[in-house]
This record gives sequence, C-alpha cells and structure tokens, in this order.
Amino acid sequence: MKRIAILGSTGSIGTQALEVIKANPDTFELEVITANSNADLLIAQALAFKPNVVVIANEAYYEKVRDALQQQDIKVYAGANALCSVVEIGTVDMVLTAMVGYAGLLPTIRAIKAGKQIALANKETLVVAGQLVTELARKHGVNIYPVDSEHSAIFQCLAGEFHNPIEKIILTASGGPFKGRAVEELRLVTKAQALKHPNWDMGAKITIDSASLMNKGLEVIEAKWLFGLKNEQIEVVVHPQSIIHSLVQFEDGSIKAQLGLPDMKLPIQYALGYPQRLKSDFPRFNFMDYPQLTFEQPDVATFRNLQLAYDAMGQGGNMPCILNAANEVAVSAFLQDEVGFLQMSDMIESCMAKVAYIANPSYEDYVDTDREARVRTLELVKK
Amino acid sequence: MKRIAILGSTGSIGTQALEVIKANPDTFELEVITANSNADLLIAQALAFKPNVVVIANEAYYEKVRDALQQQDIKVYAGANALCSVVEIGTVDMVLTAMVGYAGLLPTIRAIKAGKQIALANKETLVVAGQLVTELARKHGVNIYPVDSEHSAIFQCLAGEFHNPIEKIILTASGGPFKGRAVEELRLVTKAQALKHPNWDMGAKITIDSASLMNKGLEVIEAKWLFGLKNEQIEVVVHPQSIIHSLVQFEDGSIKAQLGLPDMKLPIQYALGYPQRLKSDFPRFNFMDYPQLTFEQPDVATFRNLQLAYDAMGQGGNMPCILNAANEVAVSAFLQDEVGFLQMSDMIESCMAKVAYIANPSYEDYVDTDREARVRTLELVKK
Repeated sequence: MKRIAILGSTGSIGTQALEVIKANPDTFELEVITANSNADLLIAQALAFKPNVVVIANEAYYEKVRDALQQQDIKVYAGANALCSVVEIGTVDMVLTAMVGYAGLLPTIRAIKAGKQIALANKETLVVAGQLVTELARKHGVNIYPVDSEHSAIFQCLAGEFHNPIEKIILTASGGPFKGRAVEELRLVTKAQALKHPNWDMGAKITIDSASLMNKGLEVIEAKWLFGLKNEQIEVVVHPQSIIHSLVQFEDGSIKAQLGLPDMKLPIQYALGYPQRLKSDFPRFNFMDYPQLTFEQPDVATFRNLQLAYDAMGQGGNMPCILNAANEVAVSAFLQDEVGFLQMSDMIESCMAKVAYIANPSYEDYVDTDREARVRTLELVKK
Repeated sequence: MKRIAILGSTGSIGTQALEVIKANPDTFELEVITANSNADLLIAQALAFKPNVVVIANEAYYEKVRDALQQQDIKVYAGANALCSVVEIGTVDMVLTAMVGYAGLLPTIRAIKAGKQIALANKETLVVAGQLVTELARKHGVNIYPVDSEHSAIFQCLAGEFHNPIEKIILTASGGPFKGRAVEELRLVTKAQALKHPNWDMGAKITIDSASLMNKGLEVIEAKWLFGLKNEQIEVVVHPQSIIHSLVQFEDGSIKAQLGLPDMKLPIQYALGYPQRLKSDFPRFNFMDYPQLTFEQPDVATFRNLQLAYDAMGQGGNMPCILNAANEVAVSAFLQDEVGFLQMSDMIESCMAKVAYIANPSYEDYVDTDREARVRTLELVKK
C-alpha cells in the first residue's frame, strides 16, 4: 500500500487523483487531503474517503470543516503552517503537490526534507526554485515524479533508458484556443474565450497560461530541472490534437514518444503507481478517430510568454521566479478583467527588467523576489 | 567488445550492419561474414574488415573467394553446412541473421543451441517456426533482439516496462507503392513498379512483400512470437510517412511509440548495441519536414496477403510455414515475370488449402511442410 497525501485535493488534479485512488483501493491509501478554501468539497471528500488528516488552508473555514467532520475519526487543521506540517506525517509515503502556483514551493520543500516521494503537479515549484529543489531531492534520496502530461510522457519514455544520455526533448503544445491568430486579434480576446481550451479540461490559471503559451514556457523550465537538461536541449512543437504528449530523442537519433487521449488521470496514476502501470478503464486512443496528427512551429513572436520563459531560463538565478510571480499576478488580473490578454506579456517583461537579479539565490532570496515581483506587477496592473 | 557474426553480409541489412560496426570500432568486433553467392562483395568486405571467418554458401564460388583471400589470415569455407557451423564458433557473442527467407531457420536454431545472442533480421525464422524457436531460446537463455524496424520500435518501447503487461501493439505499415489502388488496378502492375518502395530502400524480396502487404503479415506473426502476444493483441495501421515505426499500448491505456526517419541502421545498431544506445550521426528527424502524420485502416480486401497471414496465424501449427513457403515461391515467380501481382495471393491461398495441416509440428515437419508447399506452389506457377 502506498500512502498518499494530496495537497490541493479539491482542484482539477486533486479530484482526478481521488478518482484514481478510489479505483485502486488495494494499491493506495489516502492519508491527507488539503484545500485552500473549497470547504464544501473538502468535507465531502473527507466523508467519502476517510483520510486521517484534513487541512483547510484558509482559516476562515476551519470551524465549518471541523464541525462537519466531528463525528469522524479525522484530524482537522487549518492554516499555511498546518499545510507544511502534514506532509511530514510518518504514515505518508508520497505527497501529490496539486495546489496552484508559488504556494506549492514551501510544502514541497518540507515534504522533500521529510523524505517523502513527490508526485509533482505544481510545476511552479521547479520553475521558481528548480536548482534548490532538485538538489534537496538528491540530498534526501527523494524521487520527483512528474504529473504534468508532457513531463509524464518524457518520464515514461525514459523508463529503462536512464543509462542512455538524452540528446533533446520535444514538448508538445496544443497551441491553445488562439493558435494561428495575429497579435492584433489577441488584443481584445475575452476571459471566456481564453478559458475554452480546445483539448484539456483544467483549472483557470493553467488554462489561461495555455492560451498565452506561458504554460509551455513554465514546462520548459520544469523539464530542465526534472531531467537535468541544458537549455538548448528543450524544444517545443505545436501539435493541436494533443495526442503525442511529448518526445525524447536519444544520442543514437531514436525518438520515443508517449501518446494517448488528453486525460490527466493517466499521468496522475502513473506518478502515483510508478513503476507499476495499473490496469485502467480510461477511454482508449484510436488512430481512426485521429487520422491526422499535425505539427508546427510555435509562434513566439505573437505568443511572447514562451519566449520570455526561454529568456528567463537563459538568465537563470531568480529570473524564472520573477517571471512566475509576475505571471501569477497578471493572470489573476486578467481573470478579473483588469488587464487585457496582451498586457500580461508586457507586465511580465517589465517586471523581469525591474526586479533585482540574483545569480545564486537562497530560499529567502526566492521569497523576497517573489514578494517584490508581485508588488511591482500589481503596480503595473493598477496603472 | 561484442563479437559479431553476420549471416548475409552482402545484403541490404548486412551491408548496413557493417557500416554500424565500422562506425563503432570500440564496441564491435567482426568475427564472421557469410554470403550466398555475391562473392565479389564478400571478398571486398573481408579485405576491408578482416573477419576471422568467411563463408560463401554457394560452393561454386568457393575457389574464387579462397584465392582472393589467400594472403589474409582469414578462414574461408563454403556450403550450407559451413553456414550452420560458423555460428557455433566460440569467439562469436551475437549472430545477426540477415539472410533472406526460410534459409535462415536452421542457422538460427544452431546459433541458439550454441547459446549465441540473436539479432534477428530474418523474420521468416519466427514466421515459420516461432514456437519452436522461442522455446529453444528460452531453454538456452538466449535473447532474440529484433532488427525489423517495427519490432525494434516495440522492443525500444518495452525497455523498462517488462513488468508491465502489454494490452496490444500497433504495427505501422507504409501501405507500399500501391496504397489506395483498387483490385482491378493491381492486376497489371509491373515488377518495376512493385520494387519502388515509397520510404524504405530494401532488398527485392521484402520490397515485393511490402507492396503486397505480406511483409506486414509476416511481421504480425513475428511479433506474436517475439513479444509473446495473443493474436488479437496485434493490430496494423497504415501510416504512409513511415515515421512512427510502431506502438505499444499498456494496460493503463498509455501508448508508447518509437519514431525516426526510415533508416535501417538505427534498429540494426540498437539490436547490436543493446542496452546501450550508441551515439550516431544518422540524419535526425524533424517535425517541420513532416508537418502531417496520417493514419488509415489497411485494405485487407484488396491486399489479401495481410488477411491470409492473419488467417495462418489464427490456424497456427504449420500453417504460417505453408504461407511463407508459398509466398517465397510466388514472389520469386513474380520477380521473374512468371505470374502477376494478384496471382501471388491466389497461389498462397490455394497452397494453404492443399498442404496437410499439422497442429504441433516438429522441426522435421517444418522441413517437410516447406518442401511440399514449395512444390505445390511451383506447380501453380507452371499452370
């Protein structure tokens, strides 16, 4: 039995992870679930799955959750500190980090220091502090299993190949709902349009990031740290059908790819169950439903976020942290109709130019950088 | 150093294998080369590579080869028996079986009995006597590494996955030069047209088999034995670009594929070098050169050989042996302009109906079946 803690159980990844756990009761045991502020769903999940511990990060909901679960043999905690403590519980083997954004960094670090295996859905952790986090993981003998479908694809292709050097990886990108549009057409796209992803059903933040190609940029940086790659070893190709989830090219020139319908349950299950592939009833891919798979270059002139992410990775240090913080604020502002679609890139670029660069940041430097970048970007939003 | 014997060094696979060996002098040592009757090329290869042993199967060329190599420290033998003996030489680690057709069966069996690892390019060995050969390999602790690009693709996808059951495999087929044609249009196609494969540069026999889809049929049967599959676990999809070389679907629904330009040197090198991927300068695949990959159902009503192969596999016993022998004679007759393209299927079907079925054939039964099927098919050719 693998005993699982899910950080962010009420989100898109979290709820699908619970489906995977439910379908495999002989393999997984749910120890901990946490949510930010969706108390109702958290309570329902706790009643259905009976974990040992439940955490609601937003303390305003503590009493509601506690009261709803008082007949149960379930410990209820609240607050950011509790989130960091529960990952250290002795009965937890693996932590699925499925919360959104920078908030995932500290709990992930704490889980690694406690020697827990990590199923990483929170890519921002590696974007912000990839060097620090991967070094910690090595030091504590912790494996980081990717949950992102692209990185899961790469990881699946690397099974049995860890002795063979990677020549390059190719991350596929759907191109999002605005693929093929000119800059001028993007100026007035709405939140509702940006939230309609052609292939994947995901949370709001990542869906906007997909529309702006920032998601792919964050994935490029995530891949660098997950697989120990040089910047120039990471390519992006637009593949609108989202069937080939990503590819690895080895030094003999051979390419391996992982394919399937766009369904996050598969990579979630692979990360939780690794190295076992658990029999599933997920819908199967059929070439006759996809008689054409197409590929094109990403348009980084129009979708500048991808280029900004490559730039941030190239500069290294705290630059990806700045990029990420500015993006989180920009996306939040876009979702509140405070800024337009194209302004997001402007604000991120401006923020990257303004916040002080640190070549070898400590954890505290990341915290300061994140705070400063958010303040700067918020100022830009208010202009 | 891995010490290699190449059976069929002057053919398409053999010559490319020599290029691989030449490019990796620290990894491979050439011990033995053999040819059927291309004495001139065999002599040139012997002078260039200085193997310890050279065999010319056709005894008529023995003196020519012997005289040409008399200044060298190279043993020269001739005849079918010599072919079977040299695979047993103590200094040979791995035998690449790259001869054409049924003739590969006996030397492969002898090599397995001598405990040599097998790089199998001669698919007919497994088509004719898959059960016997794979049981022998298990008994002698011999691994059979596939060289066929499709089976190499499957094998590459299975690295690190041997503990995970296969749900199904999908063999890709280019469809050959006559893809999309109606039966009536096939009646008068010429040898020259059939020999023009759209993607692969191969020997004459396999190129005709590709045009008739018999090659894919033989590969289906080969895959059954190589990967221990049930008949219904093997699918074929037509993929005219020949970039995805084949795919494996696991029980979780995940699909892995191996991709690359159509270049036999890669699977040859992978089989010889396994588990190491050797750095190569083979041309690299680029999606921008192949912006569309397409897929369609094979047309088994028009290209009946594929269906005949599935039928033979379904009946089992000596039926694939009958299919293969009839096909070898039919292809040879087609290459000599003695029969038309569509008559090949007629003759194979007729032969499968006439030769006595044996459910559990011994080696001798295979020899008899092969002989009888050839006689029967030759009679049909003469009609």
